[in-house]
Amino acid sequence: MKRGTIFVLSGPAGSGKSTVREKLMQKGLNFHYSVSDTTRKPRGAEQDGVDYRFITKAEFEDGIARGDYYEYAQYTGEYYGTPVSQLIPYIEKGVNVILEIDVAGAMQVRERDKNAVLVMLLPPSYAALEQRLRDRGTESEEKILKRLARARDELNFFDKYDYFLLNDDGRIDECVRRLEMIAEVESDKTRNNPDFPNKFFNIQGETKK
Amino acid sequence: MKRGTIFVLSGPAGSGKSTVREKLMQKGLNFHYSVSDTTRKPRGAEQDGVDYRFITKAEFEDGIARGDYYEYAQYTGEYYGTPVSQLIPYIEKGVNVILEIDVAGAMQVRERDKNAVLVMLLPPSYAALEQRLRDRGTESEEKILKRLARARDELNFFDKYDYFLLNDDGRIDECVRRLEMIAEVESDKTRNNPDFPNKFFNIQGETKK
Repeated sequence: MKRGTIFVLSGPAGSGKSTVREKLMQKGLNFHYSVSDTTRKPRGAEQDGVDYRFITKAEFEDGIARGDYYEYAQYTGEYYGTPVSQLIPYIEKGVNVILEIDVAGAMQVRERDKNAVLVMLLPPSYAALEQRLRDRGTESEEKILKRLARARDELNFFDKYDYFLLNDDGRIDECVRRLEMIAEVESDKTRNNPDFPNKFFNIQGETKK
Repeated sequence: MKRGTIFVLSGPAGSGKSTVREKLMQKGLNFHYSVSDTTRKPRGAEQDGVDYRFITKAEFEDGIARGDYYEYAQYTGEYYGTPVSQLIPYIEKGVNVILEIDVAGAMQVRERDKNAVLVMLLPPSYAALEQRLRDRGTESEEKILKRLARARDELNFFDKYDYFLLNDDGRIDECVRRLEMIAEVESDKTRNNPDFPNKFFNIQGETKK
């Protein structure tokens, strides 16, 4: 049975990654969206169990101790993590899983699964990112500067990612289409079909020694 | 300026790789088909300079001595090789190049260019391959057995290839479509866009030290 692939989607605040991920999920393809645990408070319309599972610091740290997290990271004092239960059962059933996580988490995924596919979503330029964050008009200057500093740090990981998608204005659907293509060609990778040569020669039940 | 990518298409005789390559070329995409040099005699409707450049053994060996070949291999006593001039000028102009070469040549390309994309085209099974070769009805039993033995050898290189495409009956157009997709997502690879972070921050003319 063919395993599913882990797709990591990262990108600075303002890159549009949630929108891209939601649009991809709406297509009803072979994807499970991995709901992260976090200790931060819900914002706006965020729903428990849908956007995140909101848990306490004690619960999160118990989870870490039990090895419940495939990856986790701390950001501004709060934990964010991917429960193993959101990943492995799906992968094993041949379902792809999409993770919307930051660069620190992405590096942990890369370490644990060399077949994971890391995608960074980016606005066309730093100036455009700054403009988007200011146009929101909802955040303090201090928060905007923090987000920009973080975006600069994230760009340092650019070459650790497999793909990057440019989310210029009006290009959301193109990003979704490209993410779909990336997933589609992934199924043609030889590394995701290691049993094919045996199948080709009709050799059954043999395992490589 | 973005470099083009080298796409290697390999596959046993009877896999349909020439048909797939021709159909891809007919689409008028950003591809150059690299015409190989060979010392073997032309067959059927093969045209000099179109299917191969047909040259003498002495000419080929002079070329090897001059370093004219990006890769070359010998098969049943005849040389086959990709002239550097069929590759590098195109890659540097941002044009993708498609090479229809065997596994030995593919391994040399992999060695020289880690960004090359290796694709193996395969019939669904060894039995299907044998059937196809016999159905042609043009070759001696000895030749058929040789081709089958070679196909078995080629399959040993399966996991050295990036992608494989299954060319089942009636699936030629699907293979072409997938090859197109593979090329399209290649342009989103971070490794093919190493200058993007500088562009993002609008840093011009700087080279990494």
